[in-house]
Amino acid sequence: MTTPLRLGIAGLGTVGVGVVKIVEEHGALLSARTGRAIEVSAVSARTRDRDRGVDLSGYTWEDDPVALAKRDDVDLFVELMGGSDGPAKAATEAALALGKPVVTANKAMIAIHGQALAELAEANDAPLRFEAAVAGGIPCVKALTEGLAGNVITRISGVMNGTCNYILTRMESSGLPYAEVFKEADALGYLEADPTLDVGGIDAGHKLAILSAIAFGSRVDFEGVQLQGIERVSIDDIHRARDMGYRIKLLGEARRTEAGIEQSMRPTLVPADSPLGQLEGGTNMVVIEGDAVGQIVMRGAGAGEGPTASAVMADVADIARGLTIAPFGQPAATLTPAIRANAATQCAWYIRLSLRDEPGAMAKVATELGRSGISIDRMRQYDHPGDDAPVLIVTHPCAPADMTHALTGVTGTGVVNGEPVALQIQTP
Amino acid sequence: MTTPLRLGIAGLGTVGVGVVKIVEEHGALLSARTGRAIEVSAVSARTRDRDRGVDLSGYTWEDDPVALAKRDDVDLFVELMGGSDGPAKAATEAALALGKPVVTANKAMIAIHGQALAELAEANDAPLRFEAAVAGGIPCVKALTEGLAGNVITRISGVMNGTCNYILTRMESSGLPYAEVFKEADALGYLEADPTLDVGGIDAGHKLAILSAIAFGSRVDFEGVQLQGIERVSIDDIHRARDMGYRIKLLGEARRTEAGIEQSMRPTLVPADSPLGQLEGGTNMVVIEGDAVGQIVMRGAGAGEGPTASAVMADVADIARGLTIAPFGQPAATLTPAIRANAATQCAWYIRLSLRDEPGAMAKVATELGRSGISIDRMRQYDHPGDDAPVLIVTHPCAPADMTHALTGVTGTGVVNGEPVALQIQTP
Repeated sequence: MTTPLRLGIAGLGTVGVGVVKIVEEHGALLSARTGRAIEVSAVSARTRDRDRGVDLSGYTWEDDPVALAKRDDVDLFVELMGGSDGPAKAATEAALALGKPVVTANKAMIAIHGQALAELAEANDAPLRFEAAVAGGIPCVKALTEGLAGNVITRISGVMNGTCNYILTRMESSGLPYAEVFKEADALGYLEADPTLDVGGIDAGHKLAILSAIAFGSRVDFEGVQLQGIERVSIDDIHRARDMGYRIKLLGEARRTEAGIEQSMRPTLVPADSPLGQLEGGTNMVVIEGDAVGQIVMRGAGAGEGPTASAVMADVADIARGLTIAPFGQPAATLTPAIRANAATQCAWYIRLSLRDEPGAMAKVATELGRSGISIDRMRQYDHPGDDAPVLIVTHPCAPADMTHALTGVTGTGVVNGEPVALQIQTP
Repeated sequence: MTTPLRLGIAGLGTVGVGVVKIVEEHGALLSARTGRAIEVSAVSARTRDRDRGVDLSGYTWEDDPVALAKRDDVDLFVELMGGSDGPAKAATEAALALGKPVVTANKAMIAIHGQALAELAEANDAPLRFEAAVAGGIPCVKALTEGLAGNVITRISGVMNGTCNYILTRMESSGLPYAEVFKEADALGYLEADPTLDVGGIDAGHKLAILSAIAFGSRVDFEGVQLQGIERVSIDDIHRARDMGYRIKLLGEARRTEAGIEQSMRPTLVPADSPLGQLEGGTNMVVIEGDAVGQIVMRGAGAGEGPTASAVMADVADIARGLTIAPFGQPAATLTPAIRANAATQCAWYIRLSLRDEPGAMAKVATELGRSGISIDRMRQYDHPGDDAPVLIVTHPCAPADMTHALTGVTGTGVVNGEPVALQIQTP
């Protein structure tokens, strides 16, 4: 038995408290598994005098997370403050510069500064781990980096923001519109302080960018993620999609194509009876496809005290066991610049539009689609009490650029009220 | 870049060939990820002159796997012969005794001799890894050993034999009886040379015992697995179970109770709309429950060239990267003897019986159940053309011993034809 591994934890929100609890309650288990005692030596947070449900009086308090990271009695810095820059980044850099391992749950920081931090970590021979940054308790970073290391990864997809999945499934089950369910989620404390991070797809986009970098051996490229939030998903679309055999999910997809890497996070129709289609509430799902393994699906809680702390502790245990690899699975210097090939993949589309009830209206829409080379797979016109007929179209696969062109044409016909809604349908 | 890691592969069936292909085709990828070139230097198999679809002429051939394991130009021994004893075990022991790492897909060998082999491996400071022994391509050994290391694991469950799941789902979709579908599976090459390994639940039991040892820090105890095969599952039961909202799966469960460890692998009813219930064909699913993480579900191909080779290569990559931990996640000497607490957990039951069409028959059955303290949740009597009425009973949870007692009583009433069928229903 070597000397204890002493943690300094910055950030004592839900996850930080969860980590303290695991270290305190599972000491014997952790040292049996890792061969080393794991202890908390010092902690830091914005406010000291808050009741967090755990007794922190035995740990040294530091107001300044950078000072915490630098303490001689901190062997491993656990960053749980959040925020891509500011104190989180400063303290992470301070620890790495001293050659200290860092474990973080900070998806924004890794998605934006991951390359620079990985270079700093490797230059100082310090592990930098972030299992908790992606999909909560699901050990998907490890699965991808290590468990599937023999594969050329062809696609990563998944539902990686539990709040959005909660909102979308709750809209469907309750029949309530987005704005109402958003309020409910807020009241339940499901939303980030800045809710745009959740519903705008940014948080999920951060996660996808991290997995994508590992999968394809390219520099993390959050800016390259085509982002669309769930704010404009209507209860009508949810019901109509269901009629056609689909459910709408905030779906992330990263794929390697001949032209480069395509990353997107947007509301997408998935088959209702597929594993992704059946995902309810706040659960996350990560689907990894490799040339040898085929498809691996991982499902679990995407957030919360226990699950996220579990992921943090997996990284801590790895470090205690001496298991260390490059943050993104290969040396940062060998990660290639990400060549973006967005909107390269053909896919089928769901289009909902409101058609004026006049002769030839449908013909005009169909003509515009045909003119852009888009063929219709299925079409439904619904009963309509007023003048406007709700029309649903599912197309055969086409290039996204052709769809953009077609939608401009359709709007220009003058027979459509408002903007047509167009959502991608996941390619199998 | 250090010296290449040279593999000696014993066993050139489907998986062995898959490993050769990955090493040959993904050389650049593997060395980018692991920092080390990976090569095959020597191979061994029972018959030399078989066309395996890959050119093996560049590798040294050894008839004797033990000699292969001992070769100076073999740094890592890959055991893919199978069989719990014989050449597989002898060659594994020879490699470990020389301090050489061993990667194996051999579930029988690890389930039966895992403790002794782990002790030998640790005594010689040689890694012994077996991701490919459990659930094909699903990186579940790693998830459990490393990715969830911060959790007290409370339960492992899953479908771990693709052949059995194929047979059961095919029976349901085709309406064909077990014997017919068994023949189909045999013709498709899905069955082991000794099919009892598959349909008797032995192969799946080996896998469960391995996961259970890691999960609970106890010595691998295959003999402690309560085993029941799928041979007696009838098409009637499949249909009746479906009527009640269930599907029948060859389900493995290992749980830690106050009294000890309970392990079982047997046909079990699971809710039709649960992830396990929705599992089709040859796919595997492993469900891990931990106190912090909650429930993690992993799904993927449970067998086949690519998936199993992917798992072998994950272990090879770990060794190339220098990531080594004790085979069962903690030193073999610290694994506790497995205290069996079988049949300790209460569960609900599905009972199907054939009732004589005479007054008071149902009352007699109900009386016997009540006498054993078993209460009925749901009961259905089906239309019957002849004298015998098919009756289905779903009970409330009760102790397995009470059910055994009750079934003896029910048979003794004289109003039941043949033996009642009793299957457990998975506890949520």
